Amino acid sequence: MPVALSQPGNILSVKGVQLATVIAGIKNGLKPDLVLITFEPDTVCAGVFTRNAFCAAPVIVAKNHLAQANPRALLINSGNANAGTGDQGLNDAEQSCVLVASAVGCTEHEVLPFSTGVIGEDLPMDKIGSGIEQLPARLEQDAWVQAATGIMTTDTVAKACSRTLQIDNTEVTITGIAKGSGMIRPDMATMLAFIATDACIDHEWLQQCLVSAVNVSFNRITVDGDTSTNDACILAATGASDSRMLDGSCDSSIEFQKALNEVFIQLAQAIVRDGEGATKFVSVHVESAVSIDEAKKVAYTVAHSPLVKTAFYASDPNWGRILAAVGRAGLDNLDINNVGIYLDDVCIVSKGGRDPAYEEALGQAVMSQQEISIRVTLNRGNEQATVWTTDLSYDYVKINAEYRT
Amino acid sequence: MPVALSQPGNILSVKGVQLATVIAGIKNGLKPDLVLITFEPDTVCAGVFTRNAFCAAPVIVAKNHLAQANPRALLINSGNANAGTGDQGLNDAEQSCVLVASAVGCTEHEVLPFSTGVIGEDLPMDKIGSGIEQLPARLEQDAWVQAATGIMTTDTVAKACSRTLQIDNTEVTITGIAKGSGMIRPDMATMLAFIATDACIDHEWLQQCLVSAVNVSFNRITVDGDTSTNDACILAATGASDSRMLDGSCDSSIEFQKALNEVFIQLAQAIVRDGEGATKFVSVHVESAVSIDEAKKVAYTVAHSPLVKTAFYASDPNWGRILAAVGRAGLDNLDINNVGIYLDDVCIVSKGGRDPAYEEALGQAVMSQQEISIRVTLNRGNEQATVWTTDLSYDYVKINAEYRT
Repeated sequence: MPVALSQPGNILSVKGVQLATVIAGIKNGLKPDLVLITFEPDTVCAGVFTRNAFCAAPVIVAKNHLAQANPRALLINSGNANAGTGDQGLNDAEQSCVLVASAVGCTEHEVLPFSTGVIGEDLPMDKIGSGIEQLPARLEQDAWVQAATGIMTTDTVAKACSRTLQIDNTEVTITGIAKGSGMIRPDMATMLAFIATDACIDHEWLQQCLVSAVNVSFNRITVDGDTSTNDACILAATGASDSRMLDGSCDSSIEFQKALNEVFIQLAQAIVRDGEGATKFVSVHVESAVSIDEAKKVAYTVAHSPLVKTAFYASDPNWGRILAAVGRAGLDNLDINNVGIYLDDVCIVSKGGRDPAYEEALGQAVMSQQEISIRVTLNRGNEQATVWTTDLSYDYVKINAEYRT
Repeated sequence: MPVALSQPGNILSVKGVQLATVIAGIKNGLKPDLVLITFEPDTVCAGVFTRNAFCAAPVIVAKNHLAQANPRALLINSGNANAGTGDQGLNDAEQSCVLVASAVGCTEHEVLPFSTGVIGEDLPMDKIGSGIEQLPARLEQDAWVQAATGIMTTDTVAKACSRTLQIDNTEVTITGIAKGSGMIRPDMATMLAFIATDACIDHEWLQQCLVSAVNVSFNRITVDGDTSTNDACILAATGASDSRMLDGSCDSSIEFQKALNEVFIQLAQAIVRDGEGATKFVSVHVESAVSIDEAKKVAYTVAHSPLVKTAFYASDPNWGRILAAVGRAGLDNLDINNVGIYLDDVCIVSKGGRDPAYEEALGQAVMSQQEISIRVTLNRGNEQATVWTTDLSYDYVKINAEYRT
């Protein structure tokens, strides 16, 4: 059961973007598993990708194609990651692009391929081929939620989000979809996420815009600390709203970045809320750190601790485990007498030990909630960072022990 | 159920060392929980301790006392870690030493205190005091296994090990005990471990000897990646065998170090075999790395991956997860085409993808075993490292979700 996450509503279409989803038979159990997203000509795209050294074949091909041309189409399959598949995997990813190019009328380099699912099995190219044949006839502007469903693997809820904003007197829309539930510890990228806007955006600024948004959203979540081989996040700007060009130099650019960050953060949090086996949504906020990196280091050490995560699952205010995690984060010259740790507003640790006013009942009240915030004050600088994560439950083990059966 | 680990047998007494264990009532359920170990005069001791910034009160006191005098007594309680307890904790640890000093006839600085158990609760000093009164009358030379039992927390099996060796014509003995099962990712130290020998050892070399042994044993294991606030490992040399003095300069010193490493490795592996919820014992061996640090980095990334660990629990040869973990270890310029990954002798990955000769049945046969070896060849250097770990099971979650109930 995801934590306070329901089916997406009010998802807005984006001028210049069409989507189609089919059941190609790649996933077990006949579920939607092949998605085509097309963009009108002159759409500019930016992308960030996994830094896993074993990056999947589609990631290699997508990066290569993105460097050569403005994409006209994205093809995404779920159920098979086409990762660890060597030369055959690269051939299959390229061949998928050739098939899509022929089906929609563009060049192979204008197609980006994405895959998610089991690692190490070859793509079923016959099923991919038959699926691609059916897709162009199904393209629609308002099929975002179907597409969000089509890219799911162990996700239990589709993830989509929209925002609008005014640029001068023109309304522009941002809509995005994402998938991810386990193997979540994005590193400069994310699980699969595709976000589009009809704003007009300078190509160079678009990449900065994407990196800024990813850094406060997908790069701030973890479920199990495992970084996928297939992480990818694409931001497309069709310009179809005829808004004026945003290049980072005007107030409207700032407004746009703010709205974009909101979409990204909502999608990133949705991945955590739907984290494998999640029963809690936990925000770990570290403040008064020397640097953002230091704040993230402490936050991730807490967020990755299996002992902290099982205590959350048990609603047990075993704050000693949080203290132990902060202590092993590897900060140089940390004076524990200056460290404060809070569960929501309840101070649990001060001056190196249990806060004198702390009582178990206060911690218990916080831990019994579905949504919990841990705040760590280091009192040695002015930087901060927030990371979002889940608890560690029986169901996480069950889902991952039975993943391939 | 621990993995191929039974009650210790053939544990030898060490001349100059006596031990006593009582039920002081610190643990729930009236189990042995207070241990005294005494050394004859002129015993030299070396110690390594946790590097967790929030190190527990007894660790602070033990380090301080060890710097001032040769220890005559160790007091170890289980059931309460005396960590995160601030000034009260320091006072309680000091006071315990005062009580022991009075009971056995030495100075307070000749006593080292150790605690393990729940973090954040004050030591029950009344129970500790009553326990200490009973201990001296119970001291015996051959009470090592009882002591190993008295320091257990979530351990299900006592951990003890002995070796003898000849130095010239004198037989010397090494015997050690250890405890630990969860919150296991020692860092320059270990969970609690106490090892003694009756060999004569130069004090300065003893510390080197200890660090060398810890680096290939307790610093190479992980259960859940959490480093305890209370890790400590003490090596005592009583000299009571009247062997000649070992100072690292002779062949006998090398022989001694070798025997010592064997005791340490057996105790460290026992901790993993009894890891919380463990059903598998997994060796992760990384070879042909540029440095030992690099080899350890890859080995620990694999050993900490919840996805790899749940696959082991399920006996699922989901080798893609191992590949993904190697890929995210953060090595600079790793050429995945040179990486080989093996399950026992079965090559699963070569040239960046599934080995052409690999078949699922071969991987399945390995994964179905209780003891499994992963070998990663990086083919870019001459260094290597081995790390030992467990799988991640329902029972790990259960044990840690219910720890305080």
